[in-house]
Amino acid sequence: MNAPTRINSALNVRDQFPGVGDWHYLDSAATAQKPQVVIDAIAQAYGPEYATVHRGIYQRSSDMTARYEAARGAAAKLIGGKAEELVFTRGATEAINLVARALPKDGRNRVLLSQLEHHSNIVPWQLAGYEVDAVPLTAEGKIDLDAAEEMLTEQHRLVAFAHISNVLGSVLDPQRAAEIAHSKGALLLLDGCQAVPRLPVNVAKLGCDFYAFSGHKLYGPTGIGCLWGRSLDALPPWQGGGSMIDRVTFRETTYLDAPARFEAGTPHIVGAIGLHAAIDWVEKLGMDAIHAHECALVAETRTALSGVPGVTLYGPEDSAGIVSFNVDGVHPHDTATILDDAGVAVRAGHHCAQPLMDWLGVPATARASFAAHSDSSDIEALVRGIEQVKRIFG
Amino acid sequence: MNAPTRINSALNVRDQFPGVGDWHYLDSAATAQKPQVVIDAIAQAYGPEYATVHRGIYQRSSDMTARYEAARGAAAKLIGGKAEELVFTRGATEAINLVARALPKDGRNRVLLSQLEHHSNIVPWQLAGYEVDAVPLTAEGKIDLDAAEEMLTEQHRLVAFAHISNVLGSVLDPQRAAEIAHSKGALLLLDGCQAVPRLPVNVAKLGCDFYAFSGHKLYGPTGIGCLWGRSLDALPPWQGGGSMIDRVTFRETTYLDAPARFEAGTPHIVGAIGLHAAIDWVEKLGMDAIHAHECALVAETRTALSGVPGVTLYGPEDSAGIVSFNVDGVHPHDTATILDDAGVAVRAGHHCAQPLMDWLGVPATARASFAAHSDSSDIEALVRGIEQVKRIFG
Repeated sequence: MNAPTRINSALNVRDQFPGVGDWHYLDSAATAQKPQVVIDAIAQAYGPEYATVHRGIYQRSSDMTARYEAARGAAAKLIGGKAEELVFTRGATEAINLVARALPKDGRNRVLLSQLEHHSNIVPWQLAGYEVDAVPLTAEGKIDLDAAEEMLTEQHRLVAFAHISNVLGSVLDPQRAAEIAHSKGALLLLDGCQAVPRLPVNVAKLGCDFYAFSGHKLYGPTGIGCLWGRSLDALPPWQGGGSMIDRVTFRETTYLDAPARFEAGTPHIVGAIGLHAAIDWVEKLGMDAIHAHECALVAETRTALSGVPGVTLYGPEDSAGIVSFNVDGVHPHDTATILDDAGVAVRAGHHCAQPLMDWLGVPATARASFAAHSDSSDIEALVRGIEQVKRIFG
Repeated sequence: MNAPTRINSALNVRDQFPGVGDWHYLDSAATAQKPQVVIDAIAQAYGPEYATVHRGIYQRSSDMTARYEAARGAAAKLIGGKAEELVFTRGATEAINLVARALPKDGRNRVLLSQLEHHSNIVPWQLAGYEVDAVPLTAEGKIDLDAAEEMLTEQHRLVAFAHISNVLGSVLDPQRAAEIAHSKGALLLLDGCQAVPRLPVNVAKLGCDFYAFSGHKLYGPTGIGCLWGRSLDALPPWQGGGSMIDRVTFRETTYLDAPARFEAGTPHIVGAIGLHAAIDWVEKLGMDAIHAHECALVAETRTALSGVPGVTLYGPEDSAGIVSFNVDGVHPHDTATILDDAGVAVRAGHHCAQPLMDWLGVPATARASFAAHSDSSDIEALVRGIEQVKRIFG
């Protein structure tokens, strides 16, 4: 056994996941399984601790409000931000839509994206009326920042890149992306869905202006995500409702400051509390340790699959936690189906990144993605499954 | 003991709520406590059953997709609609924002609301650029539909009313509201947040065009709500992202039909499953029985508080599940604080209905609201607590 799996075994990480067991779950990039401690926190919050936030005068509601705000603080701290800079959203998708809709265009009507973006970082900009330019990728599958520098103009309001590609696992150089964006007066938004669960993130160091991530990919509940923003008060409100207003009349309504301004209606209270439990859990393990663990598993997987004739690997050697591949002559859906029979769950499809599929020249890929609970047994099962795919389609 | 509390005791309803116990929880209009069966369904869904929806080829993901869609069907059926007419949203607030933002104005730039609307049914229309007209209330605190008929013009795109007032408990005549709206070619949206947990709803009979409600007020999870719409495909997409697209390119993107078109990103999977469990729970009890139970509790409360000198009651005699009141000369926050000491949780404030407070001529009210687990012991504790308020402030 190598170092990362030893770390894993020592902490009994796998045993903490009631959704994993003997199953070889390699679809954590789609959604993460939940540690028992997160599930327990959720059940407790819906049970003897349950109350609404903000509005109740009684004690249990004050307690719940304090816990909701503590969750905000924990989520901000995880990425190196401050509580007042963090908005709870329905997910990362809503976070990006919020920026796309609320950010004043200031006379600039273009955004610069990349060829590997997830649909959630393409479609919101199109729907908000921006003209979209897409930066090409390098040969190994990273966003080509030299090209980005050449393409960026003063018509671009914003540069929006994935911090880690959900298909290739390729990691952006965010500092350089920030320098490029700011050199033309554009803002930088990072889609951190795959990065926050996989490596330490510090928005102050990265120099970005917005950072979006989701709870369910970070071992937390569904239905909650986070938008961090350096200057959220510069954005007008987007959705209206309770808890975001100062004074409502039919003639005129005034609004609270950020982040409350962007949280209309009763929030996903238990989502925030469950996310806090998940953040405590990853911080106990250590984001550095999780990152090292997943990098080692990726290296092990790439080495193993390189030895299987007829398997094509995508993405760079140093990708983080994610390996996309195809078996020559076999549709990835068939690959995934046979792997499912072998107790291995991978995703097959366009991974909500059709422009990247166009760039790769394939309709789809199969994708194995790791989490803190993954270990070498998962990789061995994957390789055995792929050999079975080859036997069936050989 | 009277009939409704007998029904309650017979089914041991109160014992099913780990958040209630001996606590006199009278804030169900803000958010409902959860039956254990709902909490168990949530814990199970985050544990051995957990997977993403729509995208996974492996069996557990197909199973989860089937359950997510079954939840949609159950939510639609609860209000007499069809699955394809129901969108899962972050909550009722997002549901109303969705309509406000996505509905084409078709040259009509006014909406007709009422003086008793929750901020969530006022502010979204203002933010979407509509001119707002507000129907006055009758002396007993119902929306004055005669006035609505006179006020409505062909400049109104939409009439949007609360089915039940969250402050007064007054119940709308939705059929007449629909006739009025449609007579001028306007659409009718009903805010059903308080109605769906309190009485049987059938959108086909009501004749409305949109119906919004939230999960957490219906004994379900936070972070999920529903928008029902008669012709959702007439609305263009609002938020963009994964799972709502047909084909994405940087030049042009095409979209799926409703309801998928409106569910960008990974949905609140476990929210839907928990809501389904809550719907099964209320349907087993019967919405007619819950309605009768709460009406009897309201009558009991109004009778008891009418006998306490210096207590002002708001809203009509036949209000549903909700009683707002004030103790003369005492700020409702003080009332609520003293009641909290007595183990009684009521809400005090403007209840996200500042225009209604203006109409009532008070800055705030105290509000007691009931649920299926409420019984006469809660009312007795409330009355004892109010007598204590009067002693302290007498």
